[in-house]
Amino acid sequence: MARFFMAGSNLQGGVAVIRGRDAEHVRVLRLRPGEDVTVCDSQGTDYKCRLVRADKEEAELEVIEVVPCTAEPSVKVTVLCALPKGDKTDYIIQKCVEAGAYRILFFQCERCVARPEKPEKKLDRWQRIAEEAAKQSGRGIIPEVGWAGNYADALNEAVHTDLPLFMYETGEREKLNEVMEAHPGIQSAAIVTGPEGGFAEFEAKLARIAGLHLCSMGERILRCETAPVVALTAVMYATGNL
Amino acid sequence: MARFFMAGSNLQGGVAVIRGRDAEHVRVLRLRPGEDVTVCDSQGTDYKCRLVRADKEEAELEVIEVVPCTAEPSVKVTVLCALPKGDKTDYIIQKCVEAGAYRILFFQCERCVARPEKPEKKLDRWQRIAEEAAKQSGRGIIPEVGWAGNYADALNEAVHTDLPLFMYETGEREKLNEVMEAHPGIQSAAIVTGPEGGFAEFEAKLARIAGLHLCSMGERILRCETAPVVALTAVMYATGNL
Repeated sequence: MARFFMAGSNLQGGVAVIRGRDAEHVRVLRLRPGEDVTVCDSQGTDYKCRLVRADKEEAELEVIEVVPCTAEPSVKVTVLCALPKGDKTDYIIQKCVEAGAYRILFFQCERCVARPEKPEKKLDRWQRIAEEAAKQSGRGIIPEVGWAGNYADALNEAVHTDLPLFMYETGEREKLNEVMEAHPGIQSAAIVTGPEGGFAEFEAKLARIAGLHLCSMGERILRCETAPVVALTAVMYATGNL
Repeated sequence: MARFFMAGSNLQGGVAVIRGRDAEHVRVLRLRPGEDVTVCDSQGTDYKCRLVRADKEEAELEVIEVVPCTAEPSVKVTVLCALPKGDKTDYIIQKCVEAGAYRILFFQCERCVARPEKPEKKLDRWQRIAEEAAKQSGRGIIPEVGWAGNYADALNEAVHTDLPLFMYETGEREKLNEVMEAHPGIQSAAIVTGPEGGFAEFEAKLARIAGLHLCSMGERILRCETAPVVALTAVMYATGNL
């Protein structure tokens, strides 16, 4: 069923009105009066609606049923990825939204090949990818996609969660499953993954000093765009959200 | 370190000779005499080698050290995917090889949009993608990519493993983590995932009758190219291979 996100305040009195790009989307989907769509308020509630009328500018919906949205994981996971080259960002955003990320933040570190002067310029496009993926996968929120800044900023974001995890390919590390088992009942977590060339040794040291758990994900070497999705899936599985 | 696969029989007497496309690859990587590469025999052994000489046709390597390859998971997972549209096959192959799949087989079912007349024609290209991903992720084997045939053929492949799992989005299902916990010590497993439009109801029924476990992966709806990677990661995590 088609899914849209809307502020809860626009959903009162049993009527919802879709405007702007979403109204265009209703047209593209060729939805007709009488057909059902779901509107989510991004706050944990789904409104099952029926399309009353639609034109180029707006679509009017009648609210049929109000139900809790059960798609949100019990753990809010912030995925922090070193900025990769090219369109790997898009892939990371789409897959991490599907897999249940709460936030996806990119950052710059030592071995990042991509060094855009104004990464903030990409935020609009990134956020649209997250919105499309949230609609498609039936999420209860549109995960925020943001720019964390430099490496220290990224570590700072991570340590403000219950369980900051640092995915590292070499040296002394904990096994991800052992870390997860040692921390039951977490409300939030962070997953930090590196760029194409991996993290520099001093970055790993800094992460350890900052209190992150340096974790291995087995003996196979994952691409920089695969690692966040695999780590997030493992955390979702370990916390009963898969 | 660059990685190549070679039959163990070509690795005797302390010398290895790389020929054909792999020799070309040595040239592309601009490897020079004295540099180290790893040659894997696909049977669980890695040969740490040093490049002696290389030309367009072949590269000669001296074997320095013979070590067990630890990258292979303890569980052999066959990933069975309904044939998706376009280049999603490539994505599935690459990511599933990274995540530790033993075999990746595509099949045709009711709602497959892609209906190539000769799917076998794609096997060479698919296998090359698997080989590249195996080299890059440090696998101990090149996972086989194949064409399973029709839906019944796919089910037949699945039931010949210790734990055949059928990923389904609706109806009565078991939770994947409960199924995994109820089956410790498995040596093999199969993951069956559907096409863009999902499985037809009769296909799910047939899977249940055939003895597959119909499993949910949470409340979020995964794209057909995401589901196999997420399910495989969950199985790897659950069996201590992540």
